[in-house]
Amino acid sequence: MNYRMISYYIGRILLIEAFLLIFPAVGSLIYGDGTLLSFAVTIGALTLTGLLAVRKKPEKTSIYAKEGYVIVALTWILMSLFGALPFYISGYIPSFTDAFFETVSGFTTTGATIIRSVEALPKSLLFWRSFTHWIGGMGILVFVIAIMPKTENSSMHVMRAEVPGPTVGKLVSKLRASARILYGIYCVMTAAEIIMLLAGGMPLFDSIVNAFATAGTGGFGVLNNSIEGYNSVYAEMVIAVFMLLFGVNFNLYYMFLVKQGKQAIKSEELRWYIGIITGATLLIAVSLFTSTSNDIADSFRLAFFQVSSIITTTGFSTANFNTWPVISKFILVFLMFIGACAGSTGGGIKVSRLVILVKSGLRDIKKAINPRSIETVKIDKRTVEEPVVKSVSVFFATYMLVMAISMLAVSLDGFNLETTSTAVIACIGNIGPGMGAVGPYGNYADFSILSKLVLSFDMLAGRLELIPMLMLFSPYAWSKKYS
Amino acid sequence: MNYRMISYYIGRILLIEAFLLIFPAVGSLIYGDGTLLSFAVTIGALTLTGLLAVRKKPEKTSIYAKEGYVIVALTWILMSLFGALPFYISGYIPSFTDAFFETVSGFTTTGATIIRSVEALPKSLLFWRSFTHWIGGMGILVFVIAIMPKTENSSMHVMRAEVPGPTVGKLVSKLRASARILYGIYCVMTAAEIIMLLAGGMPLFDSIVNAFATAGTGGFGVLNNSIEGYNSVYAEMVIAVFMLLFGVNFNLYYMFLVKQGKQAIKSEELRWYIGIITGATLLIAVSLFTSTSNDIADSFRLAFFQVSSIITTTGFSTANFNTWPVISKFILVFLMFIGACAGSTGGGIKVSRLVILVKSGLRDIKKAINPRSIETVKIDKRTVEEPVVKSVSVFFATYMLVMAISMLAVSLDGFNLETTSTAVIACIGNIGPGMGAVGPYGNYADFSILSKLVLSFDMLAGRLELIPMLMLFSPYAWSKKYS
Repeated sequence: MNYRMISYYIGRILLIEAFLLIFPAVGSLIYGDGTLLSFAVTIGALTLTGLLAVRKKPEKTSIYAKEGYVIVALTWILMSLFGALPFYISGYIPSFTDAFFETVSGFTTTGATIIRSVEALPKSLLFWRSFTHWIGGMGILVFVIAIMPKTENSSMHVMRAEVPGPTVGKLVSKLRASARILYGIYCVMTAAEIIMLLAGGMPLFDSIVNAFATAGTGGFGVLNNSIEGYNSVYAEMVIAVFMLLFGVNFNLYYMFLVKQGKQAIKSEELRWYIGIITGATLLIAVSLFTSTSNDIADSFRLAFFQVSSIITTTGFSTANFNTWPVISKFILVFLMFIGACAGSTGGGIKVSRLVILVKSGLRDIKKAINPRSIETVKIDKRTVEEPVVKSVSVFFATYMLVMAISMLAVSLDGFNLETTSTAVIACIGNIGPGMGAVGPYGNYADFSILSKLVLSFDMLAGRLELIPMLMLFSPYAWSKKYS
Repeated sequence: MNYRMISYYIGRILLIEAFLLIFPAVGSLIYGDGTLLSFAVTIGALTLTGLLAVRKKPEKTSIYAKEGYVIVALTWILMSLFGALPFYISGYIPSFTDAFFETVSGFTTTGATIIRSVEALPKSLLFWRSFTHWIGGMGILVFVIAIMPKTENSSMHVMRAEVPGPTVGKLVSKLRASARILYGIYCVMTAAEIIMLLAGGMPLFDSIVNAFATAGTGGFGVLNNSIEGYNSVYAEMVIAVFMLLFGVNFNLYYMFLVKQGKQAIKSEELRWYIGIITGATLLIAVSLFTSTSNDIADSFRLAFFQVSSIITTTGFSTANFNTWPVISKFILVFLMFIGACAGSTGGGIKVSRLVILVKSGLRDIKKAINPRSIETVKIDKRTVEEPVVKSVSVFFATYMLVMAISMLAVSLDGFNLETTSTAVIACIGNIGPGMGAVGPYGNYADFSILSKLVLSFDMLAGRLELIPMLMLFSPYAWSKKYS
């Protein structure tokens, strides 16, 4: 394990976090909301720690996959620990565990909150809270790579560790260039959303903050009632459509840029994504229309917004879906599992993995019918290699195992089955609100410290697609046997 | 598809069911409980249909894997349809859907019931109900093969289709002989339990019926309060221990018979099974002791019985575990997923599959640390072939997908999340009682016809380990492309 290089890498990232914190600090100056000192102390602590860590450039700069995973896991944990300081020092979140939970929830773009009334927070903190979504959305390290002065060979291990979905693929070859292109697309889309929200009459601050939360598919808002509070069908529709756009694999946008749009539209993952959204919206709309007092238009509007918010793992709400008919709740819970497309800013197990799982299930039936036939799993007309099929199914099983163990720990708090299980599902899938006490009108404040730490672990594990966090807490990473 | 051979096979099995129905019919004569006519009509219908089907021996007797699966799936469905007739004709279950559900639940050794008061049923029907557990426990077709006059080559495909667990293995080579040995062990163990229950003062009828339900890991009892109704610690402990014994891979007993006992004890699946039981019992006992009014001895007694009942997927109860602390409920739900050992009479995904899933998850972490290392999944010190690892994970994913779709269908009935989800989990895992409205003090009577059919499908799919039922309802089995 190249500890020097790990610390050097992380040190540079902490310096970048110090830089990013200047934005809310400036906001605090402008609004004069009394949090400037908290931001200044945090920036100071980050700068000091960062400088100490980068003081000496390591002689051996080569790192391997293992170091890549450790860097990624530690980066996200440390950024959350430091990022929690402004909430804690300012006194707006008096418990450090709570502040840490809130910041992890921000960076991982989960949007689960322990704050009972967000409207009581000063604007600078609200800005920082949603800014963490925006930073975390594309991956902290993709960001670092994008702005780094020169690409190092080691970056690839780091990027692979952070974005391990099945489709990172070709983009990685020209690492820094493609990271910049991805960030370019991300910025343009965020700006477009801000402008469209402004055009509908939303205040500038709210437009920016909500656009950050949409872009990162995070879901932290500025009103206690989330998007419902704006009472604006226009704003709802703009946000719903942008959530869906940010849930698409960014490589597809890249393909449009290089005039391969035709091929992008044929993407099987995209078609499944659209199919699932359409099916889920229809089913929920019908169930709302038949079982509640909503008319047909309202049923569709509510269903579309909520499906869009949950499948992209954003977690905004325009209604208390916790009181919806059971079938609607089940559909939403299943969408929490599925999540958005690979290579998007969303969480969950990803649509492409679902496609591979469904197809390999069907393949096994065909194989049983004729054991000697050769059947392969195909996506976009290309055969998915068998090791990929296997690792996708093992990923799914591991995801379920981590969930099961987390539910046991969280169940010690004595919440009912529904609250306990959906809290874990909503955290590991990076959605935010679940059902029951953690529903859209509820929050995570009443959980114990143990549960908050377990759920923080789940948010990070889900966001980083398991391996980095599991490795960090496994003995293997620290044993010489596996180095 | 060799339809002639399929019909010939099934015809013979229906004749065997006619023979098996003579036992409850004789019981009806002895007790004079007025159900004789219902049994006679059913026996007549089975004999007629059976004779029609076997009238002409097919010229082409060879069958392939595909026919094997279809035979297995159709056999279980048809035996349940005919087996439901005594309940329906006698008028004790006025709805045929309900009678079918109850019989599927019997043969699949689930033990989910739609009967609100079992004590109101005549003894002959109670006997038949639990006898179906005993018949289904070892697999209907294993039974058929055991008593068949001469082994046919085709039997292997059928047995493979019915018992597809990862460890059928060597026993299959001498098919009829080993089927007889397995049934011998099964009979001796059942007899031992009957004698031990009698020794504790349980009435003869109850001893027999409860032993049948234990042996098949089914769970249909004769008292409304399941085993709690006997108020006998002795009976509870006898049943708890026998449930665990019937949840062990029968191949291990066979190994003891051929003096390979040492090797049997080393079985990794067995050790995990014992480990999980110990851990779950301890955790639940502690949670009962700290959160309820039970003393330490009662906490352990209740925990041990319930863990034993749920992990073996029997479903007997000695308490309303639906009101237990949430952590205990979660542990029980997870045990429902896990189920008993492969090659036992229990359901669930099986301990051996869990072991493979956990180990392949850990393997993937090691692989991530050092991508060039060669790591294999090992059980009993032997490498598990990669296609097996893959098919186990795909099995798990398919299991979850079938569950998800079933939950959507059942959620139309408007029961809450807990009831809906545990109903499906308890049916596909062949446990019987779930939580909420389908808890140990509840039943499945209030579900709609659609839900009862979906849950019947789940019970059969779980019992036959997915492939036969999924194939029967897939277009692949009937398309020339895959023949």
